Formats: sequence, C-alpha cells, structure tokens
Amino acid sequence: MKYSPINLKQKYAQFNEHWSPRVIAEMNDYQFKLAKVKGEFVWHEHSDTDEVFIVIEGSLDIEFRDGKVSLKAGEMFVVPKGIEHKPVAENECQIMLVEPKGVVNTGETGGELTANDDVWV
Amino acid sequence: MKYSPINLKQKYAQFNEHWSPRVIAEMNDYQFKLAKVKGEFVWHEHSDTDEVFIVIEGSLDIEFRDGKVSLKAGEMFVVPKGIEHKPVAENECQIMLVEPKGVVNTGETGGELTANDDVWV
Repeated sequence: MKYSPINLKQKYAQFNEHWSPRVIAEMNDYQFKLAKVKGEFVWHEHSDTDEVFIVIEGSLDIEFRDGKVSLKAGEMFVVPKGIEHKPVAENECQIMLVEPKGVVNTGETGGELTANDDVWV
Repeated sequence: MKYSPINLKQKYAQFNEHWSPRVIAEMNDYQFKLAKVKGEFVWHEHSDTDEVFIVIEGSLDIEFRDGKVSLKAGEMFVVPKGIEHKPVAENECQIMLVEPKGVVNTGETGGELTANDDVWV
C-alpha cells in the first residue's frame, strides 16, 4: 500500500485566507487543522472542549480576560474549555489547531469570522 | 493570571532516553508527548486508537506490513488503529505523539521497550 506523509509546508501553500482553518488529518474523532492568521480574532470560548494551538511559523498572542500568552514557532498552548480567549497576530502567523471534529472557530460567539468547520486541504 | 507557553526545544532539553515519551500537554483526555528515538522500535499496534506522529527534527520511517512512510521535520502521519507498525530512525529523531491518555508505547506487544505512559517533562 502507498503511505504518504502530511507535509505542513505543502498544505499551507494551498490556501491564503486568514482565520479559515483547513483540516489536514483526523485522529479518532479529533482533527488537526492549519490556519494562517493575522490581526485580531473575536473573543470566544468553546464550552465543551479544550483547544490546542501550536505555532508553526511566526508569533501569536492568545489574550485572556486576565492575562495573555505569547507563542512563537515551536511553542504550543492548551486553551482550557470554557475560557474566553482572543488570538491576535501582529504579522501573518501559521498555526496548527487540534480539537474535536465539529468545533467552530468562533465558538459560542459566531459572527462574520465564523468559518466552515470541515474544509480539508 | 500567568500563562506560559510550552516550548518544545526546552522540553526536549530535559531528557535524553530513546523511545521514552514524555507528556508535555493534555487536551481533554488526549496527551501530547515528546520522544527522542533512534534505531528500531518493536512491531506493535494500538487496537483502540489512532496515533499521530509529528516529526519535529530529523527523519523517521514508520514501517507497515505492506509498506512504509518516510517522514522528515514538518511532516506528520496518522497510524490508524489496529494497524501494525514499527517506527525506525537511522539517526536520532525528535517526534511529537498525540494519542489518548493511557496509551502504552508498545501497544499490545509489550517487552523491554515498554515505557511508563504518564511521565511529564
């Protein structure tokens, strides 16, 4: 059988939209998603699940109501379920998200930045 | 509140044993683990879960009974549940594993390479 690696750089080369996660892999009922982000996202929370952010290239701040974490390439953070957060990237940043299938990027907040949650690349 | 990034390089600097995964993060009932690997692991399978391999530095082959996949830094692969596999690294390789809490590295095979499954770094 033919087994193929999932190459992150090749996947990132296939889209340019910001704040629009693309699924690249599934593990059980979880998905690995890539996103390019720039600017300020909306405050939101995911009431049922933790959410993992891994920075692949660039820098990302995740703001919380009582602080923030600054991530650079090679760093990750787990946002606990139910905690309001707002990702912010001054310059374009490439991130990988890990979360259960079906999680919507804007959580309970919704709005115009809400992306289709199951677009593969 | 103080929020701290999880820095992969800093975590890798804290251990040197091969084939001995260290937990660095939990998301719901899943864990992110770092491992340094070199040489041949044992053939094994995980009958209840998929398993994600992400290569952070170096190169890793994952052999299957009917083929193999070769991964380099920036590449990942999802080994489906129930599929026998044997990781092999000619030179030392740094990998990140994602799988449910409680998964044992040697799966159903066991043996001397079996590591404690919940050691944090």
